[in-house]
Amino acid sequence: MLAALKRQVYEANMLLPKHGLVTFTWGNVSGFDPERGLFAIKPSGVPYEELRPEDMVLVDLEGTKVEGELNPSSDTPTHAVLYKRFLGIRGVVHTHSPWATSWAQAGRSIPCYGTTHADYFYGEIPCVRNLTKAEIEADYEKNTGILIADEFQNMKKDPNAVPAVLCKNHGVFTWGKDADEAVHNGVVVEECAKMAARCELLSPDVLPAPRELQDKHYFRKHGAGAYYGQKGEK
Amino acid sequence: MLAALKRQVYEANMLLPKHGLVTFTWGNVSGFDPERGLFAIKPSGVPYEELRPEDMVLVDLEGTKVEGELNPSSDTPTHAVLYKRFLGIRGVVHTHSPWATSWAQAGRSIPCYGTTHADYFYGEIPCVRNLTKAEIEADYEKNTGILIADEFQNMKKDPNAVPAVLCKNHGVFTWGKDADEAVHNGVVVEECAKMAARCELLSPDVLPAPRELQDKHYFRKHGAGAYYGQKGEK
Amino acid sequence: MLAALKRQVYEANMLLPKHGLVTFTWGNVSGFDPERGLFAIKPSGVPYEELRPEDMVLVDLEGTKVEGELNPSSDTPTHAVLYKRFLGIRGVVHTHSPWATSWAQAGRSIPCYGTTHADYFYGEIPCVRNLTKAEIEADYEKNTGILIADEFQNMKKDPNAVPAVLCKNHGVFTWGKDADEAVHNGVVVEECAKMAARCELLSPDVLPAPRELQDKHYFRKHGAGAYYGQKGEK
Amino acid sequence: MLAALKRQVYEANMLLPKHGLVTFTWGNVSGFDPERGLFAIKPSGVPYEELRPEDMVLVDLEGTKVEGELNPSSDTPTHAVLYKRFLGIRGVVHTHSPWATSWAQAGRSIPCYGTTHADYFYGEIPCVRNLTKAEIEADYEKNTGILIADEFQNMKKDPNAVPAVLCKNHGVFTWGKDADEAVHNGVVVEECAKMAARCELLSPDVLPAPRELQDKHYFRKHGAGAYYGQKGEK
Repeated sequence: MLAALKRQVYEANMLLPKHGLVTFTWGNVSGFDPERGLFAIKPSGVPYEELRPEDMVLVDLEGTKVEGELNPSSDTPTHAVLYKRFLGIRGVVHTHSPWATSWAQAGRSIPCYGTTHADYFYGEIPCVRNLTKAEIEADYEKNTGILIADEFQNMKKDPNAVPAVLCKNHGVFTWGKDADEAVHNGVVVEECAKMAARCELLSPDVLPAPRELQDKHYFRKHGAGAYYGQKGEK
Repeated sequence: MLAALKRQVYEANMLLPKHGLVTFTWGNVSGFDPERGLFAIKPSGVPYEELRPEDMVLVDLEGTKVEGELNPSSDTPTHAVLYKRFLGIRGVVHTHSPWATSWAQAGRSIPCYGTTHADYFYGEIPCVRNLTKAEIEADYEKNTGILIADEFQNMKKDPNAVPAVLCKNHGVFTWGKDADEAVHNGVVVEECAKMAARCELLSPDVLPAPRELQDKHYFRKHGAGAYYGQKGEK
Repeated sequence: MLAALKRQVYEANMLLPKHGLVTFTWGNVSGFDPERGLFAIKPSGVPYEELRPEDMVLVDLEGTKVEGELNPSSDTPTHAVLYKRFLGIRGVVHTHSPWATSWAQAGRSIPCYGTTHADYFYGEIPCVRNLTKAEIEADYEKNTGILIADEFQNMKKDPNAVPAVLCKNHGVFTWGKDADEAVHNGVVVEECAKMAARCELLSPDVLPAPRELQDKHYFRKHGAGAYYGQKGEK
Repeated sequence: MLAALKRQVYEANMLLPKHGLVTFTWGNVSGFDPERGLFAIKPSGVPYEELRPEDMVLVDLEGTKVEGELNPSSDTPTHAVLYKRFLGIRGVVHTHSPWATSWAQAGRSIPCYGTTHADYFYGEIPCVRNLTKAEIEADYEKNTGILIADEFQNMKKDPNAVPAVLCKNHGVFTWGKDADEAVHNGVVVEECAKMAARCELLSPDVLPAPRELQDKHYFRKHGAGAYYGQKGEK
């Protein structure tokens, strides 16, 4: 079932080590089929070099396995919540990519210090709080997703305009219109996290880029007035 | 038209990922033919792995496309202004290379801390201010070029002696006697930006290299008394 | 004798340069056979590119060579003590991997700032003190092992739950259920050391991850209630 | 003449890009034949990918070219002085390797913070002062060599026990018993420079490793009592 989706998700997973976002099995990608209401996700703990397209596990939006011989990623319930709550997204990525994770461990949102960030993310990339002990013990992975979605709602952030979040003391989730774009956004977060950290070392009192510059770059790539790239392309 | 120039510019573009200066499509190289008054430039948003020499777009010094099926880089108007105002340059590069961009985000010029820098750049690599809201809204990319050229004039900097500039909260432009040299200078800026940042961590009160040492290195590679390299070589 | 163990240990040694943990010959891996009471270890000072499985040296738990034409690693007595004192471990690795060694040179234990660390190590990775002049002069390498084992005992740390240690001004030792897992743990320490250092730069007053989050991640991968990975897998 | 030496020196030069010590042509290696009193050195400004063994230039100890079609490295007079003044060395390397150069730009000697450093260098790696304006103008490259040799004499440092020096605001020179060992020492300096910088970030008040630990490591690899490696090996 959904062989094409499985292949897409497989290939998106294989981009994680290629782009240096993962060590060992520290990451996973899923892709969603809204017609069937199912997503394909990497099996848990399987090394990338052994992964095959047919190993992808199919899961419904309650996080229940529908097809596949292997256990899905232990982070599956987080993916399920994000697909449910963030309408329109069709790919989700979780990694411990080192620069983004350093910000997450520091418990800090990544300010928008430049156009590289503004080209992809409208405003800062937020870092959400730790789950409480009760939330961890009740249903850790599902509550991670609920926290992310609730916090975006509280902050009135559009998940399509800010397709990334840091989880305090943990790592990073990104998403997009398909699995491939979600990985793409994962690479961008890592680059922005790296440059923002170094920027602060060079100038400890640095301020975010001016709003009008952020707007210019965001909207030359997104929305009705976009003019970056070729016709019909992102 | 200008097939040899297009190939040169194509090859110079392909050096950007090879030297680690770009992620995805975050960079572009152009090369100028002064006889025709045209330059060839990378098309906008096309991944490097799909790029072909014939995809290079020909543009005149007003920034108007003269030949090519694809849209030229969205930064084309900046390149056009630099060719117009910086006489003698025949190659321009724009990237978000991570160390140089960290300095740009910090809003800081890169001081000349050593001979690596002095071998290529006479004095600091300046960081120019943000464009105003009005400048951004009127004609962002063209005004970026005008700002760079005006600031070099105000600072009485010779663009041939300082073939690089940082744009605050954005990235870096370099140039040279052809597209290849412009890329070469982009690599040098990135190395100097990296070493200057680390140098300041090791010694927060560090001063620039003595003027006489900077002069020695700059002039053993440039000008009438140069003795670095082989006869006839740069 | 023990050709299969030698091959395993050879292959685990070859992973050190592959994972970027060693420069030149700055590392060694051993693997232990509890039935014979012998371990196989890399010969001293032999470049990885020249290493062959049959070069592995067999040594007993007193550190005495039992078989092999070459001298065993100069760190052999440390390995011997660790096998003797840390019951159940069957692989030991020593490297000067750069981030872990930077912490060791700083004389600091690595705090648990996130789930990447908690997935593998229960609590901080300790940095043990320098040996005294007398301990160095008497039997440096053996006393290194004794110090590590004594300190774990004093700190009431279970070596199976914290399979890594930093030696002040020196480097890092890791261990595991076989040579391969010991190398795996060496890679994890290096990643955690890198992210912890960057995390402190971003937030100098950062605290360790909450205990309940550390517990959640450690125990979802270890022990009776583990649910990470596939059945029967680590 | 001296074809074997030229090949050795060629191969040692090719190790510089392999080990990441150089960008473009920012480095050079020479090797000395004490019987003839000549050394072979890289030609100036020739890219590594175009270099051939027969391109190596032969030079005498006055720095005069004896054989070769190309100009020798512009740093040739520095190499000549080092061979003259540091008896017994037969290989010299100069690079702008980024971590070592960051220390040089900071004007700081590299303290011995650990055994990685102590395994190769007895005590700190000194950073010598800038040349004066007069010294630069009179004979820059020769005076660089004289300064290094004089400073080692003033500090009573044995160049065989400390085979490396930083030149303020410039870069690093290393040497050894042949061209290959000089490159080897260049790699070690770069690793030690990196770890020492990170170590200071982690612990700003860190002290050098205890003398007895430095001695232990230095002398287990050097001198009559050495026991690291295989018989007859370094």
